[in-house]
Amino acid sequence: VNGICVQAVRPTAEQWCYAFGAGEPLASLKPGQLLRVWTPDCFGGAVSTTDDLAYLNLDRVNPVAGPFCVEGAKRGDTLAIHFVSITPATPRAVSAVFPHFGVLTSTHETATLQPPLPPKVWTYEIDVAAQVLRSRAGDRPFALPLDPMHGTVGLAPAGGQAISTITSGLHGGNLDTPEIRAGVTVYLGVNVDGALFGLGDGHARQGEGEVCGVGVECAMDTIVAVDILPGVPTVQPRLESDTHLMRVGIGRPLEDCYRQAHTDMVAWISNLAGLDQLDAYQWLSQAGTARVGNVCDPAYTLLARIAKDLLSPSLPAYGGVHQRLRQLAVSV
Amino acid sequence: VNGICVQAVRPTAEQWCYAFGAGEPLASLKPGQLLRVWTPDCFGGAVSTTDDLAYLNLDRVNPVAGPFCVEGAKRGDTLAIHFVSITPATPRAVSAVFPHFGVLTSTHETATLQPPLPPKVWTYEIDVAAQVLRSRAGDRPFALPLDPMHGTVGLAPAGGQAISTITSGLHGGNLDTPEIRAGVTVYLGVNVDGALFGLGDGHARQGEGEVCGVGVECAMDTIVAVDILPGVPTVQPRLESDTHLMRVGIGRPLEDCYRQAHTDMVAWISNLAGLDQLDAYQWLSQAGTARVGNVCDPAYTLLARIAKDLLSPSLPAYGGVHQRLRQLAVSV
Amino acid sequence: VNGICVQAVRPTAEQWCYAFGAGEPLASLKPGQLLRVWTPDCFGGAVSTTDDLAYLNLDRVNPVAGPFCVEGAKRGDTLAIHFVSITPATPRAVSAVFPHFGVLTSTHETATLQPPLPPKVWTYEIDVAAQVLRSRAGDRPFALPLDPMHGTVGLAPAGGQAISTITSGLHGGNLDTPEIRAGVTVYLGVNVDGALFGLGDGHARQGEGEVCGVGVECAMDTIVAVDILPGVPTVQPRLESDTHLMRVGIGRPLEDCYRQAHTDMVAWISNLAGLDQLDAYQWLSQAGTARVGNVCDPAYTLLARIAKDLLSPSLPAYGGVHQRLRQLAVSV
Amino acid sequence: VNGICVQAVRPTAEQWCYAFGAGEPLASLKPGQLLRVWTPDCFGGAVSTTDDLAYLNLDRVNPVAGPFCVEGAKRGDTLAIHFVSITPATPRAVSAVFPHFGVLTSTHETATLQPPLPPKVWTYEIDVAAQVLRSRAGDRPFALPLDPMHGTVGLAPAGGQAISTITSGLHGGNLDTPEIRAGVTVYLGVNVDGALFGLGDGHARQGEGEVCGVGVECAMDTIVAVDILPGVPTVQPRLESDTHLMRVGIGRPLEDCYRQAHTDMVAWISNLAGLDQLDAYQWLSQAGTARVGNVCDPAYTLLARIAKDLLSPSLPAYGGVHQRLRQLAVSV
Repeated sequence: VNGICVQAVRPTAEQWCYAFGAGEPLASLKPGQLLRVWTPDCFGGAVSTTDDLAYLNLDRVNPVAGPFCVEGAKRGDTLAIHFVSITPATPRAVSAVFPHFGVLTSTHETATLQPPLPPKVWTYEIDVAAQVLRSRAGDRPFALPLDPMHGTVGLAPAGGQAISTITSGLHGGNLDTPEIRAGVTVYLGVNVDGALFGLGDGHARQGEGEVCGVGVECAMDTIVAVDILPGVPTVQPRLESDTHLMRVGIGRPLEDCYRQAHTDMVAWISNLAGLDQLDAYQWLSQAGTARVGNVCDPAYTLLARIAKDLLSPSLPAYGGVHQRLRQLAVSV
Repeated sequence: VNGICVQAVRPTAEQWCYAFGAGEPLASLKPGQLLRVWTPDCFGGAVSTTDDLAYLNLDRVNPVAGPFCVEGAKRGDTLAIHFVSITPATPRAVSAVFPHFGVLTSTHETATLQPPLPPKVWTYEIDVAAQVLRSRAGDRPFALPLDPMHGTVGLAPAGGQAISTITSGLHGGNLDTPEIRAGVTVYLGVNVDGALFGLGDGHARQGEGEVCGVGVECAMDTIVAVDILPGVPTVQPRLESDTHLMRVGIGRPLEDCYRQAHTDMVAWISNLAGLDQLDAYQWLSQAGTARVGNVCDPAYTLLARIAKDLLSPSLPAYGGVHQRLRQLAVSV
Repeated sequence: VNGICVQAVRPTAEQWCYAFGAGEPLASLKPGQLLRVWTPDCFGGAVSTTDDLAYLNLDRVNPVAGPFCVEGAKRGDTLAIHFVSITPATPRAVSAVFPHFGVLTSTHETATLQPPLPPKVWTYEIDVAAQVLRSRAGDRPFALPLDPMHGTVGLAPAGGQAISTITSGLHGGNLDTPEIRAGVTVYLGVNVDGALFGLGDGHARQGEGEVCGVGVECAMDTIVAVDILPGVPTVQPRLESDTHLMRVGIGRPLEDCYRQAHTDMVAWISNLAGLDQLDAYQWLSQAGTARVGNVCDPAYTLLARIAKDLLSPSLPAYGGVHQRLRQLAVSV
Repeated sequence: VNGICVQAVRPTAEQWCYAFGAGEPLASLKPGQLLRVWTPDCFGGAVSTTDDLAYLNLDRVNPVAGPFCVEGAKRGDTLAIHFVSITPATPRAVSAVFPHFGVLTSTHETATLQPPLPPKVWTYEIDVAAQVLRSRAGDRPFALPLDPMHGTVGLAPAGGQAISTITSGLHGGNLDTPEIRAGVTVYLGVNVDGALFGLGDGHARQGEGEVCGVGVECAMDTIVAVDILPGVPTVQPRLESDTHLMRVGIGRPLEDCYRQAHTDMVAWISNLAGLDQLDAYQWLSQAGTARVGNVCDPAYTLLARIAKDLLSPSLPAYGGVHQRLRQLAVSV
């Protein structure tokens, strides 16, 4: 495309990956290259009716496409993954409630003696032309705006670990925030040579918190561009859009997500805008807009967010790599 | 004003109230009447420099104007308090960091062995014409949009209690959410005859979470209109704007705020749109936008939010009282 | 008794108190005097069958006997309340599960969409001679050791508040820890002249955490002795037995109780044994035995505990007031 | 020993394992066999002074000895690991405070803006004859009872994961509870053929909660006996001593550990004693003694505990395997 090499990968079901840090690389790409990848939905396409839920193998949910090797990435670098486009790859999406999962039921973590909520599946028609999702609540039709995103994106973790794609951590993973849309760059700290990133869990949309535990799940046809920031460390996932800087906090309880995200955001602001710590703390206190990612996965997520124009003038984040990848994406 | 009786109350410092459920009524008003009230800032005007923080009496912070008696309100009713306008009453506002308070420091609740962060005060100029707040971070000036709100609004609690205005609960109180702006109606369950509401803690703006523990604090000149929904119970505070329905969750940890707010929102949606519980759960999961209120007060707050147009067609909330109070406000 | 004045108070149902900081003093006593007081059970005697639960007025549960005025107690002092004896006042006790209360069910705080657990009541025979409680699980009899304690003991709170006896805070209140047995001294910081203490919520025993939300509840015939430590502040409740020093942490989430209790215990150890902060931290890390109080009330409790003999030699806590009150008690 | 085959394994530093689910088996044993194993301390012996802390590689802490293959163990079975003896393998132990770790400091999870506590190391002399540990707090000597335990014991996790030995989960891992002493049987659910267990992180003792984040760490010379319960599932770690049944709850916040542990304990009691769910809930509420494990690791632990004699008569847990392994151990 326009002289930029686009590699395309459509992994087979046998190639799907269920843990970050496990599996052999599906492909290798260079910084500045684009990758087009088809990702399965979080159920591997196995769920379209309520009955299907009974047959789910819970060790084989949330498959990701990957890992992908980024040539030259080394431990201690930052990998920038820019989402050029995220397009539903099927005309239908699915959502569900299933036992012991979701925010408003007892779960294996927040265990109680009550019987769990019963399982149920909903299907959604994806009308890309109208940018709308259509479904039914009982016999009542309803429509919601299409807003595609990836729930899961991550790298091989540190310490030789292989961590389930169901959860998240310093390596990224199942972040399940609606903020990972097309046009957004995700920054992740590299732990191993080649970074070994993967992505999946496409949602045609999700609410903030993913209340019932499941978004509007669909296979995606996605293009990403990547770049390496050599020797620049990133502890926990950060995001950048054209308008906002964001930092993901990860864990439990939810206030700890808030603390992590905002502590690091204070440091980031200090650095970019040349403020001392207390001044950055004050500024963030008045200007920040927090966003809930998920409150249903083993690790919750919550994002600290600031509008770049409010902070201006300030240095570009990560030396302007978002703008460069954005430019690259636009040129496609 | 236009035939509508507006009562105006400017309480003296001696009249300020520090607990919901304590004190004698300052004034009485009828449903459909407007009340104009001057509220002191959260420090009672006592803080304008860092040195002033050392002299704060922590049993006398966050004074509210009130209580106000609403004629005819009875236990089991809902009181609707509509914010017609919220206008800074002074040209300056103040914010601060003080020891053992705020999200990013050890506190009396989340206690650690480290010395606390040092105290510091920032002042803000309020430029109402430009709708902007101006302050300085060190020697760097910065500006943020003016967005006035009340942090604290509540009623006399149940059970003969008198609860500090520093915290919040079923009775409302120090909710500290930026969503309580002009144009918003707050619904609170009445516990005692006359409801006995109070309000205060005006913020020229605050970020989501009130990271450092203090908003841009200023005295406010505020107009509210009230109405009673006889025999209609409201368990925990709900909010309505022209565009959104909101439910406040209150407590700790933050995920419990999320659970409370969304459990009640599922019931509210079910009722208004005629959906069964699981369908409402699914709909909210994809359509809801959660908002962090505060993560610094003794009780945190987080709001479940839905856009009314996405839920349409549905019954108006509380029989359309928001629209009626809005109309009344517009007529002023 | 032996020349020591024992005052005896048996409050009528009309005199029962439902909020710390509310109500007129039932009686006044001097430091060094004994008080014998009959306390109602947490249901005010209204529950003996499952059907009775349906009629509970939730604004009128957990009545305490009090308030009692301690002559000479002033804000900033510490009140020492020594439990001389705690004796079941009835041959039967009761326990229950009721909807939306308890650790292993959804509650109003940890709300979910599931129906709550059904209500049920169990009755216990109290065999004081055998020091045993007897009850039945279905048709199976079971017996547990008698271990009487008070769930609730507190003072008038600061700031003119009146706080429900259902919850706890800096003022004490519904601590619900099995550690408040006969032989134990409770230290509480005085907020108002006369201290205005109350006690109730007798349990013939309870497990650690009070899993189902209700202990083995019974009316108690209790003797306490009190003393004042003038000008000695106590921030949050501390306990002392012949063998242990304990500090109660109060709130949510449960780790914050742990943090509060242990942060203060580090300071206490430093002071009594002359250790610096990090050394006291290390010592406590290896020697401390934490105890869960309750995980069911609006505020959880968890205690930091140390064995006095392990810390020896060290100064006596609070100048030896526990030993003096113990001596006084033994002399009765 | 007495005709029972004891296998002895002393892994070299190159063989130490840092993730459950990673590495090749060090040895294989049959059910009913004994294994004697030397385990390194949590720092791999690299820390004996405060200066040493600066050089710690945080990806290489908490090495375990293992994995060990148990012949015949299959996914869906339960592995019973009985601790026959746990003996300090060195005359000295070490403890430490290090930045961003421990309950009473800001951490990477509970992040704040304050500088962390400074690092410090304490050494302990282990006097096995006197069963005492001796150390110094500044210039003051102190002594604590020796009470050896293993902080870490676990199996290969499900789903092809490799999980750091720093944390814990359904597979066991860094449970850090003082209840894993000699004489105790640990039950873990098998996920892969051979179970692949490992153990390490010996503590000469630790307090409940492991306040500062580090126990009295030492290499151990430990004997375990193992058995398989074919087709008997165990979801999360359970423990059995001669006197108690225990269930470990794992995660954050701490109340979720409590919920998990007690929900499963209700089911266990129901099953062993033939009680229905609500009766078992009631019984546990009055008879249970909860114990805090750790409040410092990425996943906290808290145990539900019941005294077997209080529950009697009841079926033996897991068909009496604890008693059989105990007998085997005694016979050595």
